[in-house]
Amino acid sequence: MSKDKVIRMEHGAGGEPMQALIRDLILNNITNKSAGPVGLDDLDDGATINIANTMDGSKKCDEIVITTDSHVIKPPFFPDSNIGRLAVSGTVNDLAVMGAAPLALTCAIVVPEGFELESFEKIIKSMNAAAEEVGVPIIAGDTKTVERNGLDSIIINTTGIGIAGDVIRDSGLCPGDKIILTGTIGDHGISLLAHREGFDFSTDLVSDVAPLWNMIRAVIPIRNVEGKPAISAMKDPTRGGLAGALNEMAQKSGTGIIIHQRDLPIKESVSSACEMLGIDPLEVANEGKAIICVKAEHAEEALSIIRNHKYGRDAAIIGEATDGHSGKVLMKTIIGSMRYVDIPTGDLIPRIC
Amino acid sequence: MSKDKVIRMEHGAGGEPMQALIRDLILNNITNKSAGPVGLDDLDDGATINIANTMDGSKKCDEIVITTDSHVIKPPFFPDSNIGRLAVSGTVNDLAVMGAAPLALTCAIVVPEGFELESFEKIIKSMNAAAEEVGVPIIAGDTKTVERNGLDSIIINTTGIGIAGDVIRDSGLCPGDKIILTGTIGDHGISLLAHREGFDFSTDLVSDVAPLWNMIRAVIPIRNVEGKPAISAMKDPTRGGLAGALNEMAQKSGTGIIIHQRDLPIKESVSSACEMLGIDPLEVANEGKAIICVKAEHAEEALSIIRNHKYGRDAAIIGEATDGHSGKVLMKTIIGSMRYVDIPTGDLIPRIC
Ligand SMILES: Nc1ncnc2c1ncn2[C@@H]1O[C@H](COP(=O)(O)OP(=O)(O)OP(=O)(O)O)[C@@H](O)[C@H]1O
Ligand SMILES: Nc1ncnc2c1ncn2[C@@H]1O[C@H](COP(=O)(O)OP(=O)(O)OP(=O)(O)O)[C@@H](O)[C@H]1O
Ligand SMILES: [Mg+2]
Ligand SMILES: [Mg+2]
Ligand SMILES: [Mg+2]
Ligand SMILES: [Mg+2]
Ligand SMILES: [Mg+2]
Ligand SMILES: [Mg+2]
Repeated sequence: MSKDKVIRMEHGAGGEPMQALIRDLILNNITNKSAGPVGLDDLDDGATINIANTMDGSKKCDEIVITTDSHVIKPPFFPDSNIGRLAVSGTVNDLAVMGAAPLALTCAIVVPEGFELESFEKIIKSMNAAAEEVGVPIIAGDTKTVERNGLDSIIINTTGIGIAGDVIRDSGLCPGDKIILTGTIGDHGISLLAHREGFDFSTDLVSDVAPLWNMIRAVIPIRNVEGKPAISAMKDPTRGGLAGALNEMAQKSGTGIIIHQRDLPIKESVSSACEMLGIDPLEVANEGKAIICVKAEHAEEALSIIRNHKYGRDAAIIGEATDGHSGKVLMKTIIGSMRYVDIPTGDLIPRIC
Repeated sequence: MSKDKVIRMEHGAGGEPMQALIRDLILNNITNKSAGPVGLDDLDDGATINIANTMDGSKKCDEIVITTDSHVIKPPFFPDSNIGRLAVSGTVNDLAVMGAAPLALTCAIVVPEGFELESFEKIIKSMNAAAEEVGVPIIAGDTKTVERNGLDSIIINTTGIGIAGDVIRDSGLCPGDKIILTGTIGDHGISLLAHREGFDFSTDLVSDVAPLWNMIRAVIPIRNVEGKPAISAMKDPTRGGLAGALNEMAQKSGTGIIIHQRDLPIKESVSSACEMLGIDPLEVANEGKAIICVKAEHAEEALSIIRNHKYGRDAAIIGEATDGHSGKVLMKTIIGSMRYVDIPTGDLIPRIC
């Protein structure tokens, strides 16, 4: 069987190979793909469910949003955090970037025999702490075991249900909108890599994993004089990093994006680790950051609200959407040249989420 | 580290050890456990979410139901079916036994590198066929890859959102209610075991995996003269088998249950395989069966509706709820004696769902 006919690690890396797999083998084979305005074909951070039949038809209704993520990170405990906090944060963040307040989470665990109960409990406690931080209950779950030679570490799926007044879609980006990044890039991926490989770049190199709803909920109410939401699009730059997420927004909205390298928040330790390892920090996963696209006239207001929050202290306006370069992302480098920022193709750092 | 301090296969077997794990390490460590009338502490087939703020407060509202299951079955292709059909059916059935029509499913896949794309696509097609059968869209998902030495087979999590006019709870069982089982027991577990071990008991020994919503939706509308639902409780006897599910219903409702061995639908092939292997068929998992508890005066009507459906042809009234033996399940054996039917403790057949 040829190399092309089997799953490769890149199929889970968030870049082009994964997108092709999802498109060719999943979207193509599913008949019914939506239960509301945002469905599977939209490939957004989540989907919406129309429950209009239960609602008063006369007024605009809130929408139910659903999202799911499985987490296979290895090792399950990593600098400053663990898979439990990651699993809750990841799902809360996918709801948040859809503009949805988290209503409830489910927690499905697959665990190999021999896994220590003490670690298991620590993970549950971390899930609970992250859930408490944003006030979301965990209401159902599932627990399966696998022989020790069939699985090497714990896997946690969290699915989230949220409710949104205005669903915020990747495709909402418009020329002129400012692009805010809520903090430094690459912390999660690089800290994981360093931890796993035993590198010791610096002590401030820890994962950024965090549930962002409390920060994001503070900017959602910003509206223009006509009452329209100031936020046009949002995304969490997880697998595929900033490069992947910006490209998805550009493609789906048909606008171009220009970011400015000098404005990109990045820790010195991450930057030098990336240089040493030959990794582009734009392609590294983050687990506690959001890209928030805002109407230009509200950008400073949004930025200052975000910076007031503990998870947004390093937030910056990193660029803007443009009329030209439709569907493409460009970066103005520190030396003043322009380069395309492409969708990642490889599998830089496996199993980091 | 002592044997007691780590996960054992029994922790995923649906019996007492799993219940203890969930209670001691999960329920005890989660602060917020509900988003509606049925929450995590109820340990029902799913939970409910209150979205009253979006609804017209003046009338009784439908309830949103959520449920999740991860599937680790090995091998992923088994007699007559595969993990894809299982994953969709399992979640549809957990919604159905809560009385909920499926609104949408999510699909989160974890797959090892080297897994054949052809098998991957077959699995997706089976998910789609099962979803189409009950008209439920698949609206979001996630795809992660794991190195081939970290995982030996594909894992699929499906989470389902449903909507119910009257949520049906395990605890609803009342003395006098008749207990209908919608078909033969043990088919899934025993066919898996036979397939995996290379036994060849008989050709009719195939998995019963099926999405039961179309059958169950036909009995939900049955009501008494006061308009009260005839169905008092429902459950799908998956891990832990009939014994596990009946015990949960008995414990949660505080009623006793008596079943009659002579009325238990069981295939000759399953029965003889169980005898040969020393397995109690009451403890074997089913994936296309429901236990439907009905007010006695509606039992025959419900039974005939169920038997009219292709997945209910072998349905039978297998017993009744009683005033005595509170919280316990008894079986009147073929030879006329009574025996307790206990919650399974062991791990009879691993990784069958
Ligand atoms: N197995 C699958 N079945 C159905 N849809 C899928 C599947 N895998 C991914 N998708 C869809 O593809 C899109 C991209 O998924 P992806 O997991 O990259 O999003 P994300 O959760 O925002 O990112 P990450 O998983 O890195 O946090 C989403 O719309 C998702 O619903
Ligand atoms: N990891 C977990 N976190 C939270 N709740 C859990 C977890 N595992 C199981 N539960 C809860 O425990 C109860 C029993 O779960 P179980 O998986 O046995 O139910 P089921 O899905 O009906 O059965 P099966 O998985 O065999 O189909 C459910 O209410 C479920 O929500
Ligand atoms: Mg996302
Ligand atoms: Mg995500
Ligand atoms: Mg389950
Ligand atoms: Mg169930
Ligand atoms: Mg189930
Ligand atoms: Mg995802």
